[in-house]
Amino acid sequence: MGKKGTPRESLDIPEALGIVPGAIFLVCLIFCLVGFASGSNSTSKLLDCNSALLSICFMLFLGFTDDVLDWPWRYKLFLPTVASLPLLCCYTGSTSILVPTPLRQFLIHQGDLAPLGKLLEFVRLATVDRGAVDGSILHLGVVYLVYMSMLAVFCTNAINIYAGINGLEAGQSYVIGCAVLFHNLFEMHHGINIQAKTHNSRTSTTFNDDTLENHLFSTMIMLSFVGVTMGLLRHNWYPATVFVGDTYCYFAGMTFAVVGILGHFSKTLLLFFIPQILNFLYSCPQLFKLVPCPRHRLPRFDATTGLLNPSTFTVKANPSSLLHRLLAIRHFEDGTVEIANMTVINAFLQIFGPMTERSLCLALLAFQMFCCSFGIVVRYQISHLLF
Amino acid sequence: MGKKGTPRESLDIPEALGIVPGAIFLVCLIFCLVGFASGSNSTSKLLDCNSALLSICFMLFLGFTDDVLDWPWRYKLFLPTVASLPLLCCYTGSTSILVPTPLRQFLIHQGDLAPLGKLLEFVRLATVDRGAVDGSILHLGVVYLVYMSMLAVFCTNAINIYAGINGLEAGQSYVIGCAVLFHNLFEMHHGINIQAKTHNSRTSTTFNDDTLENHLFSTMIMLSFVGVTMGLLRHNWYPATVFVGDTYCYFAGMTFAVVGILGHFSKTLLLFFIPQILNFLYSCPQLFKLVPCPRHRLPRFDATTGLLNPSTFTVKANPSSLLHRLLAIRHFEDGTVEIANMTVINAFLQIFGPMTERSLCLALLAFQMFCCSFGIVVRYQISHLLF
Repeated sequence: MGKKGTPRESLDIPEALGIVPGAIFLVCLIFCLVGFASGSNSTSKLLDCNSALLSICFMLFLGFTDDVLDWPWRYKLFLPTVASLPLLCCYTGSTSILVPTPLRQFLIHQGDLAPLGKLLEFVRLATVDRGAVDGSILHLGVVYLVYMSMLAVFCTNAINIYAGINGLEAGQSYVIGCAVLFHNLFEMHHGINIQAKTHNSRTSTTFNDDTLENHLFSTMIMLSFVGVTMGLLRHNWYPATVFVGDTYCYFAGMTFAVVGILGHFSKTLLLFFIPQILNFLYSCPQLFKLVPCPRHRLPRFDATTGLLNPSTFTVKANPSSLLHRLLAIRHFEDGTVEIANMTVINAFLQIFGPMTERSLCLALLAFQMFCCSFGIVVRYQISHLLF
Repeated sequence: MGKKGTPRESLDIPEALGIVPGAIFLVCLIFCLVGFASGSNSTSKLLDCNSALLSICFMLFLGFTDDVLDWPWRYKLFLPTVASLPLLCCYTGSTSILVPTPLRQFLIHQGDLAPLGKLLEFVRLATVDRGAVDGSILHLGVVYLVYMSMLAVFCTNAINIYAGINGLEAGQSYVIGCAVLFHNLFEMHHGINIQAKTHNSRTSTTFNDDTLENHLFSTMIMLSFVGVTMGLLRHNWYPATVFVGDTYCYFAGMTFAVVGILGHFSKTLLLFFIPQILNFLYSCPQLFKLVPCPRHRLPRFDATTGLLNPSTFTVKANPSSLLHRLLAIRHFEDGTVEIANMTVINAFLQIFGPMTERSLCLALLAFQMFCCSFGIVVRYQISHLLF
């Protein structure tokens, strides 16, 4: 959409080119799968790998049909749910979670179920592990599967609505991909060290071969993903010669979801998704139609300055609304008020002033990098205070 | 292409609508998979089901990209091979074949390896089972996997080149699908009867639970497939309001290949594919560029009579060529000769004379039904003479 106001000749820029890295990615992964199948004897790992590929492939396919056929909104929630089903029904891992230390007292108090624990068991959402007397483990069962399915829907759509600027979709995916890859490699390094020590001292460890294999599997997917994304980013960087389309956003989101679910680090993954979460929360009033939502909420290109400005919508002024007071850009004499579209992209333009598409993309990617670093710090430095 | 010469307003007929039944089919199958996963405890069956879905989904996706991007020919051979990889690397079934009785003497003669058997073992293509002294079982190993991969490539492309007339693609798939379904149901019925008898008399049987489950699995896929095909056929029947595109041809072909491979009845499947095999063999001179091959080889619509005529190509006459003598339609004075394009569709028009698109489609489908019935007769009446 950004191309509309620009003086560049851009009508012949391919739109849904996410299909090409997607296809290459799938072919890479299928060959990885062949290697995995010949190397590993475990059927359940092979099943994981297969269902991961099926979910990503189905999502890629749905993304492409979305680019071509423009699905209505409700399908965008329904289809990722269906695409995540193979993953869920082949999920053989744990469906229990470790409860953060400050919350444990609400589950079990002095060896007995506390009110919150009783409530959870009463509505059959979860069972508290009575073997662990401090209430540290909560068995979620089906609720965990629902959570995973929602994670898939969230990841696919979160990247899709935080997009629209040259290089942003591929850039954010690249940064998140690198963070995930760092996490995997660090965990594997850490795990191998622990294993080596355990082998010498014969003490018990919580880090086993299975966890190692999960991270290896995730590394395999992420290496392919970061590779194709780098290639795409080169052509999608400002000034873009290709656009990535919904295809890429969906398939990138599904890849992250799959890796987070099968690698058992969905909470860490959500830490890397902080900008997308902020963008989603900030967009909620528009997404749920509490305030008007135009079809596209991209920044407006000002041809005279060559800079991007926040795009806006106009509503009847309501002085008692906090939203109107905080976000209003201009008040009109006829009692209407102009409000910037509620996306993180527009918020950046409001905070830092109008800037070029290239600078805006760099600023947003810097923010993404900051959030991912923050996520890694939280994961490795702060999380052990909570668990 | 048939729309070009027609007086109908047909520019607004959707082209690649195979995507819609394809997507519905996949969603159906994913729900079947969920049911299968909750009902069966066997991981290997779940793996089969998952890899089948992955192969079909990948093929559907590739078919759609082919409709949109028009891949060159060499990719059409490469991509189904890749799409069939998940299926192959998760294949846990037997890779041995039963040798037809008349051929057994060439493998083992008087308890010793015969020359053909020695040759096969020398080039490491297969090993003769020495436990079965009559040479009845041949272990193919990797060669069997290559055969399965070629089956996938063949099925996808065979349907794609035997197409181009309203209703033909969906019609032939419908007929083949019904034949496969009949085969599955008959085998299951037969198998359950045998099991019941075995249970009473406690004699050994070659028909086990696994075979039964394979046919059940195939039935599940085929029921979904026949269902969506029926819906598509209604709209694709002459005069078509939708065209199926490469999408449908590829996904139909892959579905048959997957069912044949996982259900262990690939030879029976090939019996149902006789018209496609004939069409492929007859097309070979054109496909391999021995004679000129125009981009499209569809029958030519004659607007004056409303009938279809064989389409042709023109080459320099070569009186010694058998092909030119047999197939020439017209000789020109400048020494060139006009030859009908070498497809079964054109051959029908040459044999039975020009006819309407509707009659031609009916004739071809009648031929398909005849071949499928013939296949079933061979499978159940003649095959026990050979094995």
